[in-house]
Amino acid sequence: MLELRLVQGSLLKKVLESIKDLVNDANFDCSATGFSLQAMDSSHVALVALLLRAEGFEHYRCDRNMSMGMNLNNMSKMLKCAGNDDIITIKADDGSDTVTFMFESPTQDKISDFEMKLMDIDSEHLGIPDAEYHAIVRMPSAEFARICKDLSSIGDTVVISVTKEGVKFSTRGDIGSANVVCRQNTTVDKPEEATVIEMNEPVSLTFALRYMNSFTKATPLSNTVTISLSSDLPVVVEYKIAEMGYVRFYLAPKIEEDEDETKP
Amino acid sequence: MLELRLVQGSLLKKVLESIKDLVNDANFDCSATGFSLQAMDSSHVALVALLLRAEGFEHYRCDRNMSMGMNLNNMSKMLKCAGNDDIITIKADDGSDTVTFMFESPTQDKISDFEMKLMDIDSEHLGIPDAEYHAIVRMPSAEFARICKDLSSIGDTVVISVTKEGVKFSTRGDIGSANVVCRQNTTVDKPEEATVIEMNEPVSLTFALRYMNSFTKATPLSNTVTISLSSDLPVVVEYKIAEMGYVRFYLAPKIEEDEDETKP
Amino acid sequence: MLELRLVQGSLLKKVLESIKDLVNDANFDCSATGFSLQAMDSSHVALVALLLRAEGFEHYRCDRNMSMGMNLNNMSKMLKCAGNDDIITIKADDGSDTVTFMFESPTQDKISDFEMKLMDIDSEHLGIPDAEYHAIVRMPSAEFARICKDLSSIGDTVVISVTKEGVKFSTRGDIGSANVVCRQNTTVDKPEEATVIEMNEPVSLTFALRYMNSFTKATPLSNTVTISLSSDLPVVVEYKIAEMGYVRFYLAPKIEEDEDETKP
Repeated sequence: MLELRLVQGSLLKKVLESIKDLVNDANFDCSATGFSLQAMDSSHVALVALLLRAEGFEHYRCDRNMSMGMNLNNMSKMLKCAGNDDIITIKADDGSDTVTFMFESPTQDKISDFEMKLMDIDSEHLGIPDAEYHAIVRMPSAEFARICKDLSSIGDTVVISVTKEGVKFSTRGDIGSANVVCRQNTTVDKPEEATVIEMNEPVSLTFALRYMNSFTKATPLSNTVTISLSSDLPVVVEYKIAEMGYVRFYLAPKIEEDEDETKP
Repeated sequence: MLELRLVQGSLLKKVLESIKDLVNDANFDCSATGFSLQAMDSSHVALVALLLRAEGFEHYRCDRNMSMGMNLNNMSKMLKCAGNDDIITIKADDGSDTVTFMFESPTQDKISDFEMKLMDIDSEHLGIPDAEYHAIVRMPSAEFARICKDLSSIGDTVVISVTKEGVKFSTRGDIGSANVVCRQNTTVDKPEEATVIEMNEPVSLTFALRYMNSFTKATPLSNTVTISLSSDLPVVVEYKIAEMGYVRFYLAPKIEEDEDETKP
Repeated sequence: MLELRLVQGSLLKKVLESIKDLVNDANFDCSATGFSLQAMDSSHVALVALLLRAEGFEHYRCDRNMSMGMNLNNMSKMLKCAGNDDIITIKADDGSDTVTFMFESPTQDKISDFEMKLMDIDSEHLGIPDAEYHAIVRMPSAEFARICKDLSSIGDTVVISVTKEGVKFSTRGDIGSANVVCRQNTTVDKPEEATVIEMNEPVSLTFALRYMNSFTKATPLSNTVTISLSSDLPVVVEYKIAEMGYVRFYLAPKIEEDEDETKP
């Protein structure tokens, strides 16, 4: 039997909003340690990994490991029916083909039960090895989202270049070109406004803006985003979920000659 | 001659917004006692009844009974041109084929006259007998609107079940099912936040969510909504208009076997 | 070489938003005295004239007169990437076929360069003689915008009639007619809320609402708008840009017999 009670239910709503446009169907894996998901996007280019650790739930009971296949769009429809202050409990019986989302209003005057059918989804769990990255940039998540959106009005791809001084985002399109430079800046009033660069060697990589913009749907989850870059590895765009875990997006860099590959 | 001056003109704007999607053309009936309307929706399933009592107007002159046929969409276009703080006066000469809406800004610096053509509309006035209902639920109107909207993302119909403890709204659709229970609760800080149930006998009735969602367009008119249910009568969904009258919506319950009747 | 630094960069963003729907491509003219533009709208009915005086810029360098042809839609896309608090600098080398917009965040932590291709645009500069107008109306710009929008829901043209007492805006359409009268009012708390009429002789002229609505896109530039009318001249609708210049729109009145000319 599974029973996961999350007082800050709005977190789960935001998690779904951050991944539902990228992934249609996915298995949520429950174990004694946490509630997690790993899935490729529908065009098999990007990878999403989600972890919500057991300690982050007010009540966490998972008698044995379960994998529950869900349509994320339907799940999102149901979670949207939870109020932002509601407590959300995820419930499933062993071997059941449904999952129940229970929403309790803060006053306990309104209790909702939404029961959703589960799906059988084939998936292989990719092992993601820990890696050393050439450069790791931590910056305000809203700033990163704004830059990706702005550059999308000019071009289809973004070149992310990191030096000790800062990180540069560049694009080029029919109407012209654009460069946005964010300087390293650690002397800010609020730590979440800092732009911090850890660099072993300079790196310059090209990515499809369409995916970057998808990733930034996770912006409401965290004030900061961490971008980890190596020339021979997929970039990792990570949004930490306060004291509970993370949503991470992985995307392979584009080879220069293939610049138009992901054009719609 | 007709001259009805309403200081709180925004009320009339809200009334029109609450009924214009349900009813295309309707006769407004003016008498010495008030300004009223009764009309079936365009698919002849739901009935709307509006009353604005003479006492609620700052100035109310209606020399003889008049019935004015109006296109509610056009009337709404004109009323949207009134500012929210404007005083609205409805004027018509006896036998005229036009009605004039006059808007005065609070400072009297801007005066607008909108003249609209009247229409001939056949309509029979239904007598709605006073009835005893099995159960009457009074609840916050925003809560009722939220529940109807939420359940619409899952199914097409709602079962409303009332017991002494509370009122349950249920639906079922392709992706799963949902139950929302609101408990009777009279110990709230503000009386308009209470959920109050008067029940003679338990009742459980099924309605098309499409109509319920239409009715909730009247939510801005009142903080509370009253839902009156009997197994052999149309439900009445009533929004009181402070000290002036009401908008009431009537809808026949669906017979279980006909559950798909009103599907689009 | 050209280098124009505008601390209040949001002004330039608002200027572009005010004219980009009316004009597709236009030459910006730079001289020692200022940055200006004059262009017909794409259907050659209305004329736009913009002036930003050199004194209004924090830094203004223009070594020799330049005329830079720009696609206003593309220029607007780039300026939308500037933050509302950003400092904007316009840069161009002599003889270059590109212009660069540089955006600096208030903290200087984010610096963006957007480079746009210039175009060759044929244009003749019309001399607009100073004229005496029969009537000049100054009124709150938001009020004027609201009236033009409201009347558009009823008709296609507006008759603007000025007397000593006030200004009347009238329209007529299939569903009825409308008159909005704004009285002269100079005894207001804030000067920008005044409606002030200078009149030599009464005037009543008809204009296409479609253009008037386009002009009101400039509303965010100024709290007041000035409308100058003469029976034998195009109307001038002017939005002053604080201490820097103006955006002016010119539109010829419609001859009564031609009332349907500009219908879509």
